[in-house]
Amino acid sequence: MINKEHIASRFKELQQSIINHLEGLDAKSKFEKDTWKRNGGGGGITAVIQDGKVFEKGGVNFSEVFGETPDQILKALKLEKSEFYATGVSIVIHPENPHVPIIHMNIRYFEMSNGIYWFGGGIDLTPIYIITDHPKYFHESMKGVCDQHNQDFYPKFKKWADDYFFIKHRNETRGIGGIFFDRLTEQENLTKENIFDFVYAVGSSFIPTYKPIVEWNKEKVITEEDKNWQLLRRGRYVEFNLVYDKGTKFGLDTNGRVESILMSLPKFASWQYDVKPKEGSEAAKTLSLLKKGIDWININ
Amino acid sequence: MINKEHIASRFKELQQSIINHLEGLDAKSKFEKDTWKRNGGGGGITAVIQDGKVFEKGGVNFSEVFGETPDQILKALKLEKSEFYATGVSIVIHPENPHVPIIHMNIRYFEMSNGIYWFGGGIDLTPIYIITDHPKYFHESMKGVCDQHNQDFYPKFKKWADDYFFIKHRNETRGIGGIFFDRLTEQENLTKENIFDFVYAVGSSFIPTYKPIVEWNKEKVITEEDKNWQLLRRGRYVEFNLVYDKGTKFGLDTNGRVESILMSLPKFASWQYDVKPKEGSEAAKTLSLLKKGIDWININ
Repeated sequence: MINKEHIASRFKELQQSIINHLEGLDAKSKFEKDTWKRNGGGGGITAVIQDGKVFEKGGVNFSEVFGETPDQILKALKLEKSEFYATGVSIVIHPENPHVPIIHMNIRYFEMSNGIYWFGGGIDLTPIYIITDHPKYFHESMKGVCDQHNQDFYPKFKKWADDYFFIKHRNETRGIGGIFFDRLTEQENLTKENIFDFVYAVGSSFIPTYKPIVEWNKEKVITEEDKNWQLLRRGRYVEFNLVYDKGTKFGLDTNGRVESILMSLPKFASWQYDVKPKEGSEAAKTLSLLKKGIDWININ
Repeated sequence: MINKEHIASRFKELQQSIINHLEGLDAKSKFEKDTWKRNGGGGGITAVIQDGKVFEKGGVNFSEVFGETPDQILKALKLEKSEFYATGVSIVIHPENPHVPIIHMNIRYFEMSNGIYWFGGGIDLTPIYIITDHPKYFHESMKGVCDQHNQDFYPKFKKWADDYFFIKHRNETRGIGGIFFDRLTEQENLTKENIFDFVYAVGSSFIPTYKPIVEWNKEKVITEEDKNWQLLRRGRYVEFNLVYDKGTKFGLDTNGRVESILMSLPKFASWQYDVKPKEGSEAAKTLSLLKKGIDWININ
């Protein structure tokens, strides 16, 4: 039987392994690691890379927190006073080169003293320029991970990502989506072990999926226009994270460690009034593809 | 008797007058004006200055909107279906030089078909570096405007600004505050005319208050360190506006014109991991003064 100690220890190993691979890819900067304690129980290890050759800013965070359940969760679950436990790995990477997409990954496990538990997670990609090849490759990779565990997962979790990573006030998706799932708990034909295996596989797919995308793009020559477009798209990323992202909202509302939560924000971002990319440009094409429901695997 | 047409027309005049003065101060860039219509009734004039000599980015917006009251307002006021009318002027200015503070001003009037009405507004200042002289000057100016109308206003609205312009997750005020008030309606010794006169005086004090601060600071020599600190403080400004600001939230929730609402965001902002200014630096001093309840007028 899988227990929380086992889950947390595998998550922590995964954090370290991802850090090692990203440092290898960057070949200049190292992650700075901060171990922090939470008032009320538990803590985490925040690892941040800054000013690298490939990665301008990124975080690979592990946390394991427990104690009295925050009122917000009790209210949401309509529960009385109880204890909670939560552990997870969260990653956001903002590359230097505008041709390398921003990536986000999160896997998490939550349980309550009354026996309720669930897993959640996902990976989504935010290209500054959408080149149709990469979304196809990325979604094939996500589908591969899902299909090995359950044939229903990819279509369901792909749609969930489209709906979740959506900037409503802009009527734009954050990027090309990926997979997203929450409150996954045991059910017919799905044991806790099955779910953990799937969640761990999602986490383990991060490097094999992202590394080739980074390598294909990291040396590309860029213009000032590319850089400016990247800054504007990062502005949208900030809008999503501060206005809609539930993890961010929950963290800020419950006095989480701000520097760990907001490691997701880019080193530089920009807002300019009413920017409309030139017709026919790569930027205009990208904008036109920031839509829900695109079947990236079968797109021409 | 003062009516909505009169209020809107005075607000619109004020917008144009402020635009003229700011263009004079900048002496390079002009405001770009967009007239927009709202689905459901009304519209506005968004005026944005970009890449000026003094002002990197700023907006001076007028709006006059009406129609069926959005569900969010009806719910908040516990009212049945009814018509609303709202008009206001909103300003946010992000100067180029880190020694020139960011400023925000808003005046607004709201009424419902059932006769309920109120005014709201305020001005607050966000210096990148807090030099004790300027907050004193700024608050004396705000107190001057308030005292001419009602002796209770300044202490009450100064505290309201401290509480409102507060970045809870950072435990920092956004800047040195100013005045903020909302739902101001007629009461003993305060007619609708009295309130309008006060609100209009707040709006009219914008240029006389801000212009000297701009002129004292706009030519100051700056370092790379100053620029970086400015980008970080602008990051905080973005955090406040996207996480806490009620006007922004309401605008985004009710399908307001996004480019007009988010004109408040700076051209460039930055987030860096766990920055701690050097002890004894101007930045460290500034951080130590981002607190509620400082009596800026009597500070040494």
